[in-house]
Amino acid sequence: MSTSVSTLDKSLVHRLPAQSPTLFDAKAKKNLSFEKIAQELGRNEVAVAAIFYGQARASPEDVQKLASVLDIQQSLLEEQLQGFPDRGRTMDMPPKEPLIYRLYEIVQNYGYAYKAVLNEKFGDGIMSAISFSTKVEKETDKDGNNWAVITLRGKWLPYSRF
Amino acid sequence: MSTSVSTLDKSLVHRLPAQSPTLFDAKAKKNLSFEKIAQELGRNEVAVAAIFYGQARASPEDVQKLASVLDIQQSLLEEQLQGFPDRGRTMDMPPKEPLIYRLYEIVQNYGYAYKAVLNEKFGDGIMSAISFSTKVEKETDKDGNNWAVITLRGKWLPYSRF
Amino acid sequence: MSTSVSTLDKSLVHRLPAQSPTLFDAKAKKNLSFEKIAQELGRNEVAVAAIFYGQARASPEDVQKLASVLDIQQSLLEEQLQGFPDRGRTMDMPPKEPLIYRLYEIVQNYGYAYKAVLNEKFGDGIMSAISFSTKVEKETDKDGNNWAVITLRGKWLPYSRF
Amino acid sequence: MSTSVSTLDKSLVHRLPAQSPTLFDAKAKKNLSFEKIAQELGRNEVAVAAIFYGQARASPEDVQKLASVLDIQQSLLEEQLQGFPDRGRTMDMPPKEPLIYRLYEIVQNYGYAYKAVLNEKFGDGIMSAISFSTKVEKETDKDGNNWAVITLRGKWLPYSRF
Amino acid sequence: MSTSVSTLDKSLVHRLPAQSPTLFDAKAKKNLSFEKIAQELGRNEVAVAAIFYGQARASPEDVQKLASVLDIQQSLLEEQLQGFPDRGRTMDMPPKEPLIYRLYEIVQNYGYAYKAVLNEKFGDGIMSAISFSTKVEKETDKDGNNWAVITLRGKWLPYSRF
Amino acid sequence: MSTSVSTLDKSLVHRLPAQSPTLFDAKAKKNLSFEKIAQELGRNEVAVAAIFYGQARASPEDVQKLASVLDIQQSLLEEQLQGFPDRGRTMDMPPKEPLIYRLYEIVQNYGYAYKAVLNEKFGDGIMSAISFSTKVEKETDKDGNNWAVITLRGKWLPYSRF
Amino acid sequence: MSTSVSTLDKSLVHRLPAQSPTLFDAKAKKNLSFEKIAQELGRNEVAVAAIFYGQARASPEDVQKLASVLDIQQSLLEEQLQGFPDRGRTMDMPPKEPLIYRLYEIVQNYGYAYKAVLNEKFGDGIMSAISFSTKVEKETDKDGNNWAVITLRGKWLPYSRF
Amino acid sequence: MSTSVSTLDKSLVHRLPAQSPTLFDAKAKKNLSFEKIAQELGRNEVAVAAIFYGQARASPEDVQKLASVLDIQQSLLEEQLQGFPDRGRTMDMPPKEPLIYRLYEIVQNYGYAYKAVLNEKFGDGIMSAISFSTKVEKETDKDGNNWAVITLRGKWLPYSRF
Amino acid sequence: MSTSVSTLDKSLVHRLPAQSPTLFDAKAKKNLSFEKIAQELGRNEVAVAAIFYGQARASPEDVQKLASVLDIQQSLLEEQLQGFPDRGRTMDMPPKEPLIYRLYEIVQNYGYAYKAVLNEKFGDGIMSAISFSTKVEKETDKDGNNWAVITLRGKWLPYSRF
Amino acid sequence: MSTSVSTLDKSLVHRLPAQSPTLFDAKAKKNLSFEKIAQELGRNEVAVAAIFYGQARASPEDVQKLASVLDIQQSLLEEQLQGFPDRGRTMDMPPKEPLIYRLYEIVQNYGYAYKAVLNEKFGDGIMSAISFSTKVEKETDKDGNNWAVITLRGKWLPYSRF
Repeated sequence: MSTSVSTLDKSLVHRLPAQSPTLFDAKAKKNLSFEKIAQELGRNEVAVAAIFYGQARASPEDVQKLASVLDIQQSLLEEQLQGFPDRGRTMDMPPKEPLIYRLYEIVQNYGYAYKAVLNEKFGDGIMSAISFSTKVEKETDKDGNNWAVITLRGKWLPYSRF
Repeated sequence: MSTSVSTLDKSLVHRLPAQSPTLFDAKAKKNLSFEKIAQELGRNEVAVAAIFYGQARASPEDVQKLASVLDIQQSLLEEQLQGFPDRGRTMDMPPKEPLIYRLYEIVQNYGYAYKAVLNEKFGDGIMSAISFSTKVEKETDKDGNNWAVITLRGKWLPYSRF
Repeated sequence: MSTSVSTLDKSLVHRLPAQSPTLFDAKAKKNLSFEKIAQELGRNEVAVAAIFYGQARASPEDVQKLASVLDIQQSLLEEQLQGFPDRGRTMDMPPKEPLIYRLYEIVQNYGYAYKAVLNEKFGDGIMSAISFSTKVEKETDKDGNNWAVITLRGKWLPYSRF
Repeated sequence: MSTSVSTLDKSLVHRLPAQSPTLFDAKAKKNLSFEKIAQELGRNEVAVAAIFYGQARASPEDVQKLASVLDIQQSLLEEQLQGFPDRGRTMDMPPKEPLIYRLYEIVQNYGYAYKAVLNEKFGDGIMSAISFSTKVEKETDKDGNNWAVITLRGKWLPYSRF
Repeated sequence: MSTSVSTLDKSLVHRLPAQSPTLFDAKAKKNLSFEKIAQELGRNEVAVAAIFYGQARASPEDVQKLASVLDIQQSLLEEQLQGFPDRGRTMDMPPKEPLIYRLYEIVQNYGYAYKAVLNEKFGDGIMSAISFSTKVEKETDKDGNNWAVITLRGKWLPYSRF
Repeated sequence: MSTSVSTLDKSLVHRLPAQSPTLFDAKAKKNLSFEKIAQELGRNEVAVAAIFYGQARASPEDVQKLASVLDIQQSLLEEQLQGFPDRGRTMDMPPKEPLIYRLYEIVQNYGYAYKAVLNEKFGDGIMSAISFSTKVEKETDKDGNNWAVITLRGKWLPYSRF
Repeated sequence: MSTSVSTLDKSLVHRLPAQSPTLFDAKAKKNLSFEKIAQELGRNEVAVAAIFYGQARASPEDVQKLASVLDIQQSLLEEQLQGFPDRGRTMDMPPKEPLIYRLYEIVQNYGYAYKAVLNEKFGDGIMSAISFSTKVEKETDKDGNNWAVITLRGKWLPYSRF
Repeated sequence: MSTSVSTLDKSLVHRLPAQSPTLFDAKAKKNLSFEKIAQELGRNEVAVAAIFYGQARASPEDVQKLASVLDIQQSLLEEQLQGFPDRGRTMDMPPKEPLIYRLYEIVQNYGYAYKAVLNEKFGDGIMSAISFSTKVEKETDKDGNNWAVITLRGKWLPYSRF
Repeated sequence: MSTSVSTLDKSLVHRLPAQSPTLFDAKAKKNLSFEKIAQELGRNEVAVAAIFYGQARASPEDVQKLASVLDIQQSLLEEQLQGFPDRGRTMDMPPKEPLIYRLYEIVQNYGYAYKAVLNEKFGDGIMSAISFSTKVEKETDKDGNNWAVITLRGKWLPYSRF
Repeated sequence: MSTSVSTLDKSLVHRLPAQSPTLFDAKAKKNLSFEKIAQELGRNEVAVAAIFYGQARASPEDVQKLASVLDIQQSLLEEQLQGFPDRGRTMDMPPKEPLIYRLYEIVQNYGYAYKAVLNEKFGDGIMSAISFSTKVEKETDKDGNNWAVITLRGKWLPYSRF
C-alpha cells in the first residue's frame, strides 16, 4: 500500500476536467510525488499539482514530459490538455476541507491588515494573482516541530489613472 | 495632505471594535506608517495592522508603546484593548475589495494544489493559522517592476489518531 | 490593565439583548472571571457566560446574585432579564471567529460519524440540545501542553412512533 | 432483518469517496457495529465511523484489519484508502439531519460562551480540531432515561506573537 | 420580578413596526399574558401576539381595547396600527431560535409527506395560510409530562383550471 | 388512469433513499392511498408517507406489512429499510413547492407569536419535533368549503439548568 | 429546420418530471406551437406550457387529447401524468434567463407598490396564485412595435380574523 | 382612526430614499389613497406608489402636484426627488411579505411557460421591464368574490444579431 | 498538439445545451478559431462563441454555414439549434474563473459610477443588454504590452411614464 | 428643481466613505454634471464618479481641484480623501438596480464567450481590471435612437509560468 502520494477523491471528479483522473490515476499507479514530477518538468510542485487539478496550463513540453514520466499515451494527454484552463471550480467557498479552510481563514482575518500594509508600501493597487508564483517549503525547528512555509509572490499592479 | 498612510474607511467602523477608530485616528493625525509603529513595538507590521483592525491581541507592553507612540491616553487604550479579540468579522466573504479578493482567489484556485503538496511533504494534517506568523516584503526586479511577497508560516499539525 | 477576563466587543452589542452590555461592563469593572461568578451562582461557568450573551435564562435567584456580585442595581437587571431568551442570533453561520469555527468544523467533519455511532448505541433519535448541559475543563499533560475538554451531555430522545 | 447497525443512505454516495460504499456494504452484510469494528482496530468508534465516511485516515494496519474483519479484498481497500482524506463535504451546512443539527445548534447558541470561558482559562487561542479526539458515551440515569455524552478534547493553541 | 410574561428582545426592535415596542412595553409594565389580553379582545392569543409583532392586523375595536387594557394613549396606537401589516421580516430563515427552528424542521422533514397526504385527500391545491387560523394548547399526560399542541387550519384552495 | 394517489416525481429520486422509488412504484401500481396503507400498518398516514420519503423509520413489523400490502419482495424491503433515516434532504429551503411553502410561511410569519405564547404557557423551552406526532384532517363547512387541519403535538422540553 | 416552436434545453431535463421530455420531443417532431395544442385542449397556452414543464395538472381528458394531438402512446402519458405536480423546481432564483429575470425584476421593483395599491383597493389580504389564471397577448402599435401583455388574475383572499 | 390608506412601516425607512417618509407621512395625515393622488397627477396609481417607494421618477410637474395635493413644501420635495431613482433595494429576495411572495411564486412556477409562449409568439427576445407599464384592477364576480387583475405590458425587444 | 483554440471543459457539459459538445468537438478537431468561424458566418466572434455556449441564437443560414465549416451533419445541428436559447446558466455567480471575475469586478466597482454618468447623459433609463452588441479587440502599445478592449453597445431605453 | 445631475440616495450613505455625501451634496448644490467636473480635473467622468463613490483614488491635485470647483473646504476634502479606497462595497451582488443589473447580465451571459475569444487572441491570462480604463459614450443613430457605448480597456496579463 502506497502511503505517501496524494490521490484524487472520486467524488471530486465531476468538478474537474478530463485530464484530472488520467493524471492522478497514472501518478498513483507509479507512486510518484509531485516533487518528483516537478523535477522532471522543471517546474514548481504546486504548479504541477495545479495542472493535475486543471488550474494551470501545461506547455507542449510539459505535456510531452508528463506523458513520458507517467506512462500516459501522449496523444490522449495532448487532447485533454489542449484547451485553456477553466479555473476556480474545484470547490465551493468557504472551503470545507480543514487544510484549505486555514488559508481562507488567514485571508478572512488578515485581509485588511495585508491591504493596509501593502498600500503603505506600494500605493494604491493590488498584488497580482496572475503574474504570480508560489511555493511550499518545509522547515523543522530545533524542537523537532515542522513548519509549513507558503510564499506568495505577485507583481504589484498600480491602479491606472484615467 | 498626507498621501501615504492607510486610514480607516468610516463605513467599516460598525464592524470593528472600539479601539479601531481610536488607533486609526491617532495614526492619521501623526501620519505614521505601520512599519514605523511596528518598529516601536518590536512586532511585524502585519501584526500591528491586525491589532488596529481588532484581529490580533496587544500585550500590556504593546498597549503602553501604542499609547506613547500615538499620543493616546493609556487608560483609554487599556480599556479598549483588554478583551480577547473577536476575530473575522471585518468583512463578508467573498471579499469585495480587489486587493483582498486576489488572496481569496489564490486560495480558490490553488487550494487543492497546496493540500496535495503539503500532504505529500508532511502527511495528514494542516498548517496552523494560529501557531502562525506572516510578513509582507517588497522586491524590485531589474526592470523596475515591483513585486509583493507574502510569506505564511504555520506549524504543521498532524491529525491525532484516536 | 486587566488581562484575563473576557469582555464584550462593542460591534456585537446590536445583536444582543439589553442585559449583555450591562453585565459585561460590570464584570469588566470588577475584573471578575466567569468561573468566579459561576461559583457565586452555583451554576456552570458556560451557563453563566450564556446568560451574559442572552442565550440562557437566569432564575430570580440568579438575578439577585448577579446584581449583588456585580454591583448592578437589582431592579435594572430584573427588568432586563425578565423575558424569555431569544436565542441563536449572536453570530452568523458559518462562524467567522476561529475558536468557534473549530467547533463548527468538528460538527461538519464528524457529524455523520456521531450520528452513525449514536444510532447504533441508542436507536433512532437525537441527543437533546435542550435537556442538555455542557462544561469546559482544562487539562495539562506531562509535556506541559494544555488541552481543552468540552463535554456535551444531552438526553436521548427517541422518535415517537405514530 | 438487521435492526441495529448504521448503513449508508444511497443518496449520499456521490458525496463520498470510493471506500464509503465498499465499507458500509461489507459492514451491513456482516451486521457489525462500529463498536465491534473499533475494538478490532484498537481505535475509537467515532474515528472508525469517520474512516467510513472518508473523514479520517486509516493507517496501513487499520486497512489490513478492516479488510480482515469485513471480508473485503485487501488490495481493493488499500487502493481506495491510500490517499489523504478530502474532508468536510459529506453535507451542506446548516445540517438538515435533526441529530446533527442539534450539535450545530449547540455551537450556534453556546459558541460565544465557550469562547469567553476558554479565553479566560487559557488566554488568546483556540482548541485544536486537529490535535483532537472525541468519544461518545451512553449513560442511564436512575429514572431509566438515557443520556448521550460527547466529549471533545483538543490541544490548546495560543496565537503566536509576531 | 415578573417571571412569566413574554417581552421583546431589544435587538429585534429595528426589524419591527412602531407599535411593537409600544405594545410590549405596556404589556411588561402591566405584567399581562397574551392569554389575558386575548380574552379582552375576544381573539386567539396567537393572533394577539402576531399583532404585537406586526404580523396581523388589528381592527379599530381591537385598537380601542388594546389601548384600554394596556393603558396606552388610544391616538398613539391608532396611528401606529393604522397601516396594513408588512409581514414576514421578524427573522431570517432558517430560524436560529431553537423553539422556532423545531417548527421549521417539521416543515423540512414532513413537508413532502404532508403534500402527498393532502393531495390524496383534497386533490391538486394548497392549504391557505391566509384563510387560516391557528391555536396553541397545553396538554398534560398521566405521567405529568406537558405536551404542546399546535393546530393549523386553512381553507383548501384547488388550482384553477385555465 | 389513476387520478388520486400521490406518486414520486422522478426528478426527486436522487435526493431520496433506495426504498423511495421501490415503495412509490409499488403504490402506484396497486393504486393505493396512504390512508389505506396506514390502516394496514396501524400507523398515521403522514408517518407512512414519511417512511416513503425516507423521513421516518419502519419497524420490522411495518416492513413486513408494507411488503405484503404492496407486493414487494420482503428481503428487498428489509435491506432498503434497515438503516436509520438520514432526514431532511428531500428539499432545499425555502421550499419552492407552493403547498409546502405555505407551511414555511406560517412559521415565518407566526414563529415569534408561537414562541411568545408557548413561553407564557410552558416557560423556557421548546416543543419537541422528535417526541412528536402529527396528523392531517379534512373538514367541510356548511358552505361546502373544505378545510385542511394539521395538528402538531410535541412534548414540551424545558431547558436544563446547569 | 423548424424555427418557431419552443423546445426543451437538454440541460434542464434532470430538473423536470418524466413527462417533460416526452411531451417536448413529440411537440418538436410535430412542429406544433403551444397555441395549437391549447386550442385542441380548450385550455390557455400558458397552462399547456406549464403542463409540459410539470407546473400544472392535466385532467384525464387533457391527457387523452395530448396523446392524440402529439401522437404519444396514451398509457405512457397517463403513467407519467398521473401524479400531483411537484411545482417550482424548474429554476433557481433569481432567474438567470433574461426573459424570466425581467418578470422577477418587476416583482422586485414594483412589489411594494402593488401591495400598497392592492391593500387600499381590497383591504388586508393577498391575490391568490392558486385560484389564479394568466394569459399572454401580443399587441402591435401603429409604429409597428410589438408589445407583450401578460395578465395575472387571482382571487382576493382576505386574512381570516381569529 | 383611518383604516384604508397604505402607510409606511417604520422598519423599512432605512432602505428607502429621503422622500419616502416625507410622502407617506403627508399621505397618512391627509388620509389620501394612491388612487386619489394618481388622479391629481394624471398617472397610474401603481406608478405613484412606486414614486413613494423611490422606484419611479417624478417629473417636475409631478413634484409640483404632489407638493400641492399633499401639502408639502415644494422646495423640500424638489430636493428630495431631484435625483435618478436607485431602484430595487426595498426588499430582499425571496420576498417575505405574503402578498409580494405570491407574485414571486408566479414567476417561479410559470417563468418557463411564459418564456416558451412568448418565444413562439415573438421570437428570440424579452418583454421589456423598462418600456413598460402596469396596472391593477378589481373585479367582482357574480358570487361576490373579488378578483385582483394585474396587467403587465412591455415592449418586445428582439435580440440584436451581431 | 493544437495550442491555440478554445475547447470545452468536460465538467461544464452538463450545464450546456446539446449543441455545445457537438460544436466544440468539431471545432477542436478542425482546429479552428472563433475568428475564422465568425468570418465564415459574417458574424462577430463573440456572438459565435455565444452560440457555442448556447447563449445566442443561430439563424438557419448560420446553422448551414456552421455545419459546412465544421463538417457536422446539418440535420443534427438543425435539431440541436432549433430551440430558443435558455440563457445564463453556464456558471454560478460570482464567477470563479479569474478572467470572467475581472469583468464582474468591474461591474461591482464601477456600477454606480456608470449609472451616475449614464443618467446624466441619457436621463432615467437603462442600456439594453438585448438590443446590444459587443466586440473584443487587441491593441499593442509601443512598449509591446497587449491590451484587451471590450466594447459594449446597447440601445438606451428610457423608463416609460405611466 | 435641477433635473439632470446625479445625486446620492440617502439610504446608500452608510455603505460609503465620508467623502461621498460631502462631494455629492456640493455637486447637487452647484448643479454640476460629472462631465463638467471631469473637464476641470482632466480625468474621465467615470473615474470622477468613481471617486465620488469611493471607488477610485484622487491625487492631491484632484483634491485641490475638486475643492475649488465644488466650493468645499480643501482641508476637509484632504482629510476625507487621504486614505486608500476600500473598494467594492457600494452594493450587494447580484445588483438590484436595473441599469447595473444589465451589465451584470452581460457578464453572466457572455462571460464564457469573452473568455474563449480572449484566450484565442491572447493566450492563457486575463484582462486586468486594475491596469484598466473605461469610458462611456453616447451615439444617436439615423432613426434618432440613442445608444450607450461602454468601452473597457485592460492590460493583458499572461499567467506566469513557475
